[in-house]
Amino acid sequence: MTPDAGAPSRERIAEAAGRLRGVARRTPLLSSPYLDEIAGRPLWVKAECLQHTGSFKFRGGWAALTALPEGTKGVLTYSSGNHAQGVARAAEMLGLPAVIVMPHDAPAQKRNNTAAMGAEIVGYDRHGEDREAIGGPMARERGLHLVKPYDDPDVIAGQASVGLEIAEQAAEAGIAGGTVIVCCGGGGLTAGTALAFEEAAPGFTVRPAEPDGYDDVTRSLAAGHRMANQARPPSLCDAILTPVPGEITFPIMHRLCGPGLAVTDDEALHAMALAFARLKLVLEPGGAVALAAALFHGDALADGPVIAVATGGNVEADIFAEALRRFPV
Amino acid sequence: MTPDAGAPSRERIAEAAGRLRGVARRTPLLSSPYLDEIAGRPLWVKAECLQHTGSFKFRGGWAALTALPEGTKGVLTYSSGNHAQGVARAAEMLGLPAVIVMPHDAPAQKRNNTAAMGAEIVGYDRHGEDREAIGGPMARERGLHLVKPYDDPDVIAGQASVGLEIAEQAAEAGIAGGTVIVCCGGGGLTAGTALAFEEAAPGFTVRPAEPDGYDDVTRSLAAGHRMANQARPPSLCDAILTPVPGEITFPIMHRLCGPGLAVTDDEALHAMALAFARLKLVLEPGGAVALAAALFHGDALADGPVIAVATGGNVEADIFAEALRRFPV
Repeated sequence: MTPDAGAPSRERIAEAAGRLRGVARRTPLLSSPYLDEIAGRPLWVKAECLQHTGSFKFRGGWAALTALPEGTKGVLTYSSGNHAQGVARAAEMLGLPAVIVMPHDAPAQKRNNTAAMGAEIVGYDRHGEDREAIGGPMARERGLHLVKPYDDPDVIAGQASVGLEIAEQAAEAGIAGGTVIVCCGGGGLTAGTALAFEEAAPGFTVRPAEPDGYDDVTRSLAAGHRMANQARPPSLCDAILTPVPGEITFPIMHRLCGPGLAVTDDEALHAMALAFARLKLVLEPGGAVALAAALFHGDALADGPVIAVATGGNVEADIFAEALRRFPV
Repeated sequence: MTPDAGAPSRERIAEAAGRLRGVARRTPLLSSPYLDEIAGRPLWVKAECLQHTGSFKFRGGWAALTALPEGTKGVLTYSSGNHAQGVARAAEMLGLPAVIVMPHDAPAQKRNNTAAMGAEIVGYDRHGEDREAIGGPMARERGLHLVKPYDDPDVIAGQASVGLEIAEQAAEAGIAGGTVIVCCGGGGLTAGTALAFEEAAPGFTVRPAEPDGYDDVTRSLAAGHRMANQARPPSLCDAILTPVPGEITFPIMHRLCGPGLAVTDDEALHAMALAFARLKLVLEPGGAVALAAALFHGDALADGPVIAVATGGNVEADIFAEALRRFPV
């Protein structure tokens, strides 16, 4: 048994990386002297917004769908948009039908892109309905395989490939150790990255970054057990507004990660404006919280280099324009 | 003698690539099914906006400055902003003083970034003064080495590394041949890329793309001799508003390139909006003309895959926001 129940083994992570090779993009690790200056330390950005479908989620989707048994009729998942697109693209490439349970208020771009890849979208009310209670029975009724967005060992194994790549790229860049900050919703990428680093580069500490008001992982890590978000205030970070840490992901994060970090919507928008000006990258608010933590919460970080994972770039034009207007560089 | 007077030899190009290895970024070759659909063919984008200083110009700057004789006191160049930043960064890394002759109306971001890297900026009037007539004598007076933005064999050799990388990446992606469109000002990158492909992947044809009203290379290629731009209308494509094709670059382009393509400012803005939504890349207007030609001028292209070089991303926030507002995706 692995130390964390349900966690993917080292072998499973390596196999997922093998299936992703030549399919997922090896996204670049970027830097800018201007960002180093703001952060007060060497700062690197893993540009997963450049991944297929505009977020790292394609990795987990592909890893999970290529692990399905022969004869699988199709897949069903729930997602506000990035996991949806990752699964929809993987399903399209593999010729599998995909059904996505998506909140009615998901960003239009995410919804349209998911539909454009041939997935069937089933809407629900984010505030009044429970997507797991809709998705599980529907998958059973329709004979579809349920691919959970983070509490799935193959999804976690796929996201772990981000960590394996960063470890390689850090070694190439001569970065021997430091802090890796990951934008964190349910914890699939954070847990996967932490598992990858445990194996490949133990000199790094992974730390989750969350939006203010959705800091369930941060509070859970501090408490030592899973705690839910209560108030659920409005937030621009739609990609990572999860109610509670994952059952599989939390024990991994608890064993391997440093304390969580929480940033405001304004800090996320400011980080987006800086990524625009200094890295020429498009980030969405939920994909910018790790960079925001690196830039604006340095006092909460150990000395030394920081690598921030920029997890996604699926942002509506008006929100992006607002970031540029409010935070001129 | 090489077939094109002043052109870098195969060896000089290989040496420049060697000096750039581990210094310049190997920028990714990206694609999107949405862009393929608009273009009506497989379309790839070489993301040189992710290069150091936000444009490919760092390559030529580094290649030229690392080829200088021992004891060089410093360098001088003229540029509206991208070559300026490329040279300024290379000079800063090498500890060399740099003087940049830059038009008074250069974009503020380009001006500020150049100054932030420690370069001395000398302003001039783009409409009333000749930057070559200012730069040449000033370099002699101050004992500085003049690094011309494109009519310099080491600069061309450095830009050629873009072509060598594309040839490698195309082979990795299984693209056996096709069209490579390059945003073209004086022709340093276009000529360098064409020389690289002649050697590394002769199944590709390089075609220059220019802004409407600044199609001197297009007209010169058609005429068989160098022709200047006359009217010089306003244009958003500040990075590539050169008066006439280079003396060294033109014979190379004439021997190796297909016909030029010209795009409107609106087409460049539309390509920027699509690169934002579909590639998560920030492009400047002058860095988007090749993509615009690939997307909107397919009728002027031979059948088969197209690779567009996205040469730069140093755009002011208000122009970027205008592109997003005018061309919603």
